Amino acid sequence: MQRTRFEDSICPVARSLDTIGEWWSLLIVRDAFQGTRRFSDFQRKLGLARNVLSARLKKLVACGIMEMVPASDGTAYQQYVLTEKGRELLPVLVAMRQWGERYLFAPGESHSTLIDKKLREPLQQLSLKNAAGDALAPEDIELVMPPEAKA
Amino acid sequence: MQRTRFEDSICPVARSLDTIGEWWSLLIVRDAFQGTRRFSDFQRKLGLARNVLSARLKKLVACGIMEMVPASDGTAYQQYVLTEKGRELLPVLVAMRQWGERYLFAPGESHSTLIDKKLREPLQQLSLKNAAGDALAPEDIELVMPPEAKA
Repeated sequence: MQRTRFEDSICPVARSLDTIGEWWSLLIVRDAFQGTRRFSDFQRKLGLARNVLSARLKKLVACGIMEMVPASDGTAYQQYVLTEKGRELLPVLVAMRQWGERYLFAPGESHSTLIDKKLREPLQQLSLKNAAGDALAPEDIELVMPPEAKA
Repeated sequence: MQRTRFEDSICPVARSLDTIGEWWSLLIVRDAFQGTRRFSDFQRKLGLARNVLSARLKKLVACGIMEMVPASDGTAYQQYVLTEKGRELLPVLVAMRQWGERYLFAPGESHSTLIDKKLREPLQQLSLKNAAGDALAPEDIELVMPPEAKA
């Protein structure tokens, strides 16, 4: 199914969804953070069709989120690793994770958890702050359009 | 197309995507944050087909992210507003926005911006921190599975 494209949108949310909003893309990025590098490992862990995985990886590479590198074990396989642009998606995954932990699990229902290696404790909740460091609620925030979009 | 379901996943990212990962869902939530409430306004702003918008809104209501309320102008129309669960998706949208601002716009290319109403300045970048408030890089973070998943 052809979907609407937002690559020229002035809204960064729409452009991000244009890049990573397809089903599977963020789960591939998630698994790449956990060290998955080989096509067959992504396929096994995610349980998706080869052609879909192939298309998603191709797009992630084309968008500069992942890159192909020679296999670390010296074999002829290519591996897929996150670029800096891809690694910078971690706050997106953490924001989704924290929302999911809070609203999509029953009390006491267990789930995977992200901890920091030093303290061995869960990460802080992501929170919205202004430039002075004050916490912001949705009603404290305003969307501003660029001048040419207002004209 | 039937897609894989993750509603029983122990991964909160997968469950979140199961709930809000369909194309359009987050853009509907984005517009709701900007005050869009009526079906016809969502349709006009997003430019999507009525049946798709109807299906997405229905799911957002079923998931408790939006709710239907009587129109504020006293007419018989129903309006769609975010619940607390929906409002708590703002960090997800801001994380996507900030990544998009950084990587998907050319230098000098203009985009919409979120500012706080008091200082009239852009929000702080979301950053990952441990419980002590120290900034964390991806390599400082570890994914821990619940005990029964390890067994």
